[in-house]
Amino acid sequence: MREVAVIAGGQSAFGSFPQMSIKELFLAAYEDMLASIPNVEPPHLAGLIEAVYVGTLGCGGFQIGQSAPLLAKEAGLGDIPCVRVENACASGGFALQQGIIAVASGLYDLVLVAGVEKMCDLSANKIRYWLGVSGDTEYERLAGLTFAGIYALMANRYLYDYKLKREVLSQVAVKNHENGSHNPKAQFLRKITLEQAVNAPMVADPLNIFDCSPITDGAAVVLLGTIELARRFNTGFLKVAGFGAGSDALAVFNRKSITSLEASVKAAQSAYAMAGIGPRDIDIAEVHDCFTIAELIAYEDLGFCPRGKAALLLEKGETFRNGRLPVNASGGLKSKGHPLGATGVGQVVELLKQFYGKAEGKRQVPKELRYGLTHNVGGSGGTAAVTILTKEQ
Amino acid sequence: MREVAVIAGGQSAFGSFPQMSIKELFLAAYEDMLASIPNVEPPHLAGLIEAVYVGTLGCGGFQIGQSAPLLAKEAGLGDIPCVRVENACASGGFALQQGIIAVASGLYDLVLVAGVEKMCDLSANKIRYWLGVSGDTEYERLAGLTFAGIYALMANRYLYDYKLKREVLSQVAVKNHENGSHNPKAQFLRKITLEQAVNAPMVADPLNIFDCSPITDGAAVVLLGTIELARRFNTGFLKVAGFGAGSDALAVFNRKSITSLEASVKAAQSAYAMAGIGPRDIDIAEVHDCFTIAELIAYEDLGFCPRGKAALLLEKGETFRNGRLPVNASGGLKSKGHPLGATGVGQVVELLKQFYGKAEGKRQVPKELRYGLTHNVGGSGGTAAVTILTKEQ
Repeated sequence: MREVAVIAGGQSAFGSFPQMSIKELFLAAYEDMLASIPNVEPPHLAGLIEAVYVGTLGCGGFQIGQSAPLLAKEAGLGDIPCVRVENACASGGFALQQGIIAVASGLYDLVLVAGVEKMCDLSANKIRYWLGVSGDTEYERLAGLTFAGIYALMANRYLYDYKLKREVLSQVAVKNHENGSHNPKAQFLRKITLEQAVNAPMVADPLNIFDCSPITDGAAVVLLGTIELARRFNTGFLKVAGFGAGSDALAVFNRKSITSLEASVKAAQSAYAMAGIGPRDIDIAEVHDCFTIAELIAYEDLGFCPRGKAALLLEKGETFRNGRLPVNASGGLKSKGHPLGATGVGQVVELLKQFYGKAEGKRQVPKELRYGLTHNVGGSGGTAAVTILTKEQ
Repeated sequence: MREVAVIAGGQSAFGSFPQMSIKELFLAAYEDMLASIPNVEPPHLAGLIEAVYVGTLGCGGFQIGQSAPLLAKEAGLGDIPCVRVENACASGGFALQQGIIAVASGLYDLVLVAGVEKMCDLSANKIRYWLGVSGDTEYERLAGLTFAGIYALMANRYLYDYKLKREVLSQVAVKNHENGSHNPKAQFLRKITLEQAVNAPMVADPLNIFDCSPITDGAAVVLLGTIELARRFNTGFLKVAGFGAGSDALAVFNRKSITSLEASVKAAQSAYAMAGIGPRDIDIAEVHDCFTIAELIAYEDLGFCPRGKAALLLEKGETFRNGRLPVNASGGLKSKGHPLGATGVGQVVELLKQFYGKAEGKRQVPKELRYGLTHNVGGSGGTAAVTILTKEQ
């Protein structure tokens, strides 16, 4: 396989934008990316892009079919192959990997990957449906188990197994809101206190409103290409060091464990093996904190700490922005927002900024970065995608 | 890129199966495929498969999220990467191409591609919605243009431009019903006369009920792998000689022409170029006859005849089973049935049968086959995928 570069990236603001269509959200992300490629004229770039991969769950069902060519035409791209990839909340991470595979194969030299979702127009009932279809319809959604309910099951078992108090969940929320408060494109720009986080209204015991990522509109794009093209574009690129994906039963009752996502473990193992590194080599990570419990479990699934020790990692401040391994410096899904299909692509956009010192103000992590990891989970762990990026030394 | 083989394939019956879930339809196709690989034990095969690509529009919305891992677990596959690909009615053809790219890249040696759709449970209103979302929501669906209506616009213009009578449309239906009558897995097993086809109830003038493919439940799978694995499996395989894809504006009013699908033209050009052959080298084709007019336009877009001459090709019998270039020997979407995501995968299953003399009874084409082509269109031409297969000489 050929080496693949992430040449540039862009992101719309994440939040509630009733006045914007998915086309406009996508264009906002695309134009944000264009601004980071000053050396190439936009029409020239459009002519060079050979394929488009779009990750979206198609939330709302407004334009659920063929959203890939629909968006590509908005950016003035031609009659090139356009493919929609869907793996629920991991749609963006999997679209990214299909783009990587396509460039690595030698088929294309330059590929656009986009993630987009428009959720805020939907009624609570429709949101429950669209999140429910990411779990197992027969055994979970139709039985009345909500998406928050699934993660509440995991959280209860996790806290019980490791004899922890629910405050450890809130600590994730406090950290990620602090990070997000420095991200001008985040949905929530305010810090919260541990007291606020602990005492917030309950959603699905033990998960309260501050343990849950929000409903979000948003889009993100990245440009993938050969190393040669990346050097020519001269934008400051990242190399794909490794990537991997895994899957599991959709229904949590069918899994070996509910305090670990086997899909994440497999995805991480494959990605580390391809990169020829281990978890200790990771300098920064964007992980899938759709609920606070998910970030703790991710620390363990990704090998950042032993089983049951995630809370300790957080308490010691190691995953804070100034820690040994900053996690979700962007604010994460919790504070930056979680427009399903856009999430896995937006994680890469954050790494591009952090590696090149372009994260706004205090959000920039102070340490030297060599390897960064993105972790994107579909539903409650039916699928997971892990991608490791590195700066050319 | 490495050479890729289609090692084996299988198909469920196509039709209306209210008693079968998408899981059962998929398993029926998977088991049909297993029966064609007698030398490999099913659990051993499951252990060798490294990734799964599933093409489906997710019709009905019953299990619209993460259907890929859901189906993979049914077949006893492990924690491997599972990805859903969606490009409306071309979902299967694009899932196939993602699988090809993944094997060609060197990432995987053995990949399962599946297509599945369950449509017959839906009300007429829901069917209109699910077909409508494959066109442009803003400019077509919400404006009241139905899927049959879009193809009726094309048919009217085509008949007007080339001064043809609507009988030429019916001739496509008569041919494909004759072919399908010999396919035990087709939805319609009966022949129709030209008189019946011409005088059937109107759907969207000039398209009557016999000009439209049906609403169908069904699934199809193919196993892709390296040439080395294909030889070891000893099933009688086909090599991927070339493949290509294209796209266009979703809304037909936004296109250069409505009597040609630019997406198909581009897809075919790319596939021919990769294979190093031209349209005259194709010995057999399965094309996307979602409506009879679509088969005529496909002849021209794929280069089988000059513009406006498709009816002549048909009248001379060249695309009949015993003709120079049999088209839709399976019965096509019109008679075999059109379970959206399954269609593009099922086309490959038919070519496997035809190349190895395994098409049932009279359906087997009498000629020697070297190159076969499959053509799968998304919606009314927003996307198209063309794949060319060949038997190792």
